[in-house]
Amino acid sequence: MKRIAIDMDGVMANVKPKFLDLYEQDYGIRLQPEQYLGKKIYQLPNVMEFRNHYFQKGFFRDLEVMENAVEVIKWLQEHYEVFITTAAMEFRNSFEDKYDWLAEHFPYLHWKNIVFCGNKSIINADYMIDDNAFNFEGFIGKGLLFTAFHNVEEKRYTRVDNWLEVKTFFEQELN
Amino acid sequence: MKRIAIDMDGVMANVKPKFLDLYEQDYGIRLQPEQYLGKKIYQLPNVMEFRNHYFQKGFFRDLEVMENAVEVIKWLQEHYEVFITTAAMEFRNSFEDKYDWLAEHFPYLHWKNIVFCGNKSIINADYMIDDNAFNFEGFIGKGLLFTAFHNVEEKRYTRVDNWLEVKTFFEQELN
Repeated sequence: MKRIAIDMDGVMANVKPKFLDLYEQDYGIRLQPEQYLGKKIYQLPNVMEFRNHYFQKGFFRDLEVMENAVEVIKWLQEHYEVFITTAAMEFRNSFEDKYDWLAEHFPYLHWKNIVFCGNKSIINADYMIDDNAFNFEGFIGKGLLFTAFHNVEEKRYTRVDNWLEVKTFFEQELN
Repeated sequence: MKRIAIDMDGVMANVKPKFLDLYEQDYGIRLQPEQYLGKKIYQLPNVMEFRNHYFQKGFFRDLEVMENAVEVIKWLQEHYEVFITTAAMEFRNSFEDKYDWLAEHFPYLHWKNIVFCGNKSIINADYMIDDNAFNFEGFIGKGLLFTAFHNVEEKRYTRVDNWLEVKTFFEQELN
């Protein structure tokens, strides 16, 4: 059985709505797509401290589930070994939040298949679904770039725009 | 640079003294080596619930550091890529304790090189130092079994009895 490594933030969890709300709360401006497409929110001018939200307890606990993720990952588990591989390690306060979020929304995932890491070159898998292209550098398998507002200009990797496209890709791989 | 994956409990952290103290506290008996050699403490007769200590907040926070681990891992980092790979994922309450323990005793380790996982077949490394032989099944590199009271009868893997032996092994690998 081939193995798929799946990222959480920006892939299973939709971070964008929370980012836009927090930005509006912090700076009084509702960002429009043309302002943030192609970058991370904290890479906008003069908002470096926006990134500190990541370090707060609770930040990762109430993120929206990405549309169709629950059903498609359940389907993937029937045909592949599925591991959740999230770069949590920079954020000590994210561990319990991420664990509880997975338990709430993806109760069918076994703890043996969850990985909190930093540098993802440590992951041994055939495929990796991730919204950060830098995670594919040094990865031994095939990277699938999950479309996010910050990666729309990245051209180097096979792209999947949503979970239905992920399912289509892996249905074809099975044939 | 070749990569070494290093387990925490029983390898970097010495769990045995705490186990013996807790067993005495719970059951009023100071275990002697002939009673526990070759097994985990919770595999002794009628003490299945002893394993519940793992689930308590704080259990992993105050473990002793294994002798010479700090110096030898620092030396390894000069010659190898070092990743800490601990099967924390069964124990939600262990995450912050393990993270803080590493920060206290091994402040030179970068968060990018720390991995909390379940099944260690997900680890992509050239070597793995671990006290549980089952972690080498499915591992793509070479396993080095770190001697612990529970694994004394295991014969399948190269054995290292302590951190000075680990250093000697990797000095030879460099030649």
